[in-house]
Amino acid sequence: MEPLGIALIGCGTVGSGVAKLLLEQSDRLAARAGRPLALRRVVVRDPERKRAVDVPRNLLSTDLRGVLADPGVHVAVEVVGGVDWARRSVLDLLAAGKHVVTANKALLAEHGAEVFDAARRHERAIVFEASVMGGVPIVAVLAQSLAANQILSLQGILNGTSNFILTGMSEYGRSYAEALAEAQQRGYAEADPTLDVDGTDAAHKLAILAQLAFGVPVPVSVIDHRGIADISQVDLRYARELGYTIKLLAEAWFDGNGQPGGQLALHVSPVLLRHSELLAQVRGPYNAIRVQGDAVGDIALYGRGAGQMPTASAVVADLIDLAVGRAQRTFQTLRFGSQDASGIALRPSATVRSRFYLRLLVADRLGVMADVTRTLAERGISIASVVQHEALEGQEGETVPLVIMTHTARTEEFRAAVDTLDRLGCVTAPSVYYPVAE
Amino acid sequence: MEPLGIALIGCGTVGSGVAKLLLEQSDRLAARAGRPLALRRVVVRDPERKRAVDVPRNLLSTDLRGVLADPGVHVAVEVVGGVDWARRSVLDLLAAGKHVVTANKALLAEHGAEVFDAARRHERAIVFEASVMGGVPIVAVLAQSLAANQILSLQGILNGTSNFILTGMSEYGRSYAEALAEAQQRGYAEADPTLDVDGTDAAHKLAILAQLAFGVPVPVSVIDHRGIADISQVDLRYARELGYTIKLLAEAWFDGNGQPGGQLALHVSPVLLRHSELLAQVRGPYNAIRVQGDAVGDIALYGRGAGQMPTASAVVADLIDLAVGRAQRTFQTLRFGSQDASGIALRPSATVRSRFYLRLLVADRLGVMADVTRTLAERGISIASVVQHEALEGQEGETVPLVIMTHTARTEEFRAAVDTLDRLGCVTAPSVYYPVAE
Repeated sequence: MEPLGIALIGCGTVGSGVAKLLLEQSDRLAARAGRPLALRRVVVRDPERKRAVDVPRNLLSTDLRGVLADPGVHVAVEVVGGVDWARRSVLDLLAAGKHVVTANKALLAEHGAEVFDAARRHERAIVFEASVMGGVPIVAVLAQSLAANQILSLQGILNGTSNFILTGMSEYGRSYAEALAEAQQRGYAEADPTLDVDGTDAAHKLAILAQLAFGVPVPVSVIDHRGIADISQVDLRYARELGYTIKLLAEAWFDGNGQPGGQLALHVSPVLLRHSELLAQVRGPYNAIRVQGDAVGDIALYGRGAGQMPTASAVVADLIDLAVGRAQRTFQTLRFGSQDASGIALRPSATVRSRFYLRLLVADRLGVMADVTRTLAERGISIASVVQHEALEGQEGETVPLVIMTHTARTEEFRAAVDTLDRLGCVTAPSVYYPVAE
Repeated sequence: MEPLGIALIGCGTVGSGVAKLLLEQSDRLAARAGRPLALRRVVVRDPERKRAVDVPRNLLSTDLRGVLADPGVHVAVEVVGGVDWARRSVLDLLAAGKHVVTANKALLAEHGAEVFDAARRHERAIVFEASVMGGVPIVAVLAQSLAANQILSLQGILNGTSNFILTGMSEYGRSYAEALAEAQQRGYAEADPTLDVDGTDAAHKLAILAQLAFGVPVPVSVIDHRGIADISQVDLRYARELGYTIKLLAEAWFDGNGQPGGQLALHVSPVLLRHSELLAQVRGPYNAIRVQGDAVGDIALYGRGAGQMPTASAVVADLIDLAVGRAQRTFQTLRFGSQDASGIALRPSATVRSRFYLRLLVADRLGVMADVTRTLAERGISIASVVQHEALEGQEGETVPLVIMTHTARTEEFRAAVDTLDRLGCVTAPSVYYPVAE
């Protein structure tokens, strides 16, 4: 059978991994795909640069136009970062009749509707397993394996950098700065880690997954996100004492009993998880996601969400899907793009009901507990448990931490209660709070 | 577009779940499949029997021949149990030009080569996501999502009945008989639970997964299997004390450094797993599997391995795959059937190296520890840790349990050492041992 002609746009970490599989495992891949996967062109900035993989010099060029004009290239693998150039090149590639495989989540989260619509117009496919959770096939699971289900919720550890840092802090007692430095040293965090640790990256991924799962366009801007940079050792220790750990979760909840098409709420936030929960056991740079469907119940996937070969594994699976002819058919059924036939309304995450962990720094004197509990009661927030240790010797009469676990409350009511608490005279520092997973 | 015409062969628990989705969610499924999924015939033993789902009376019949002769039926969903009638009916359905979706793992494990070859001959597809792990899409993950990888190992909790019983024993202190009775009461175990608790069911599933993952025919008879019926509270307690739990695991190890195509070892056995391991956290009737691939690294899937709607979720996903046209293409690339181009040799699981948990009942007298440790040393078995509690008051000088964790040893060497130990005068009852996962 005719080989599938492939061009690689970008040959950095992931691109080198893809080239490595295509060049070194060509027999294996041809057997799995039923036809050869032929790497025909590699577009890079600097053809002379030393790479981890030995790409034949005659495949390298600096110009996308060679790819656009080459009828022997059927698929372009878009593995350059950034959004602007990537967007333009993907639109050009589609217009030139190339399928596009991409690992660029920012592109899909921010311009998904535009590029998907362009692909439909040009009758080409965009295939993007590698864009979310690296080697973990969550895109295929949502788009194909769970297609019989109405998805009810998603709950994911989608950012490996944050999870590595939180694991270092909670299991090895490191400070945030120490854990971040270790992540950078091991290549799990960029020199500027902002987008990873502030929840933006997880929000991008959640936007993609929610569109697939619920069939409704989800602009990244509607996803409230909190990151991990202000999580302290104190809260990790209290959480552990109470039987919990803290993870950065991306969550989506579908509620079918509201408007005709239902309602969808989303957020990214540090969340307390019971130790016995599966997601609480996800350590280091690993990712995991729980999906609830109305037929399948609860299912979960776990694996490496980033890294050269795990991501290349997903990219090459997409290439095999194209070679076999599956990906083109899947693309036609995907609910992703500008059309919205779902009738689903997005509702603010402030309306979600949750339990909460709340840590207050209060004056160590008579009546403080009464003031705090009355304030919560006035907002209808009911207390499930309280931890207040005796003040250390010599610190009596100063300030003590007071940790409260609430029963379920509406997020905005709870936040309003915290605002009121923070204005009480007995509360001596801004309160810290996190949702607690059910 | 033309509807996909479906016949249901069998309408028991899973069949009713499939009928329920097809009849009650027809709009949802048509949207996902790009065409209607039309339930045209339901073949049952007794059309008058009351069912959990309201199947229109005119669809019901007792005769497969109506399905074979109906050009409006494109796919038959084979959800009757047993092997003999199922095998004949599947061969007839394929010969009549119908695709077959099946949840019958015994059929595939025992006659997979024959039915797959027949399907290829008739240019039809057999689609079988529901045959292993119910709603968990391990078949799609191995056949598609991990297609770029050489799979290196599989490690699965594939039998929900056994896992439910072990959870009841280890977390709620129940006896085996009590936990089994509860499983039966909740519908997680059959009246005759033999095939579930003796490891046969897990071996069937492992045979199917191993063929998919490694491309080599795996007769069920080559899979050594031990069940859970003789696991005692004593061993669960010692395991816990040492930081482990006991799970019934189906495992496969690929070793590429032996013969040209490599070697594959498989077994089903109770195994000690560290509490911090993901699979150790899988409770009750849930299933989970870890897969190691040479590119993707470690990935894992978790969910309900049986039950009406989880299994129906997988069956209907297979029907959507056929409606979209993916399943037919996937089937052509599957490495399953009589041909074996893998060059992989099966090696006995007795040659696998593992750590071991060993519990001996020994006489409480001088020199016993020396005898035991010398016997192990003579076989090259190195001891990692020993637990021997003081004899209870009043029982001094009688027998005491001695629990040993070994370093890595070849299984057959270890077993030979145990045989020798059991013949020592100081060992007063047959020793109990289980492998310990790395």
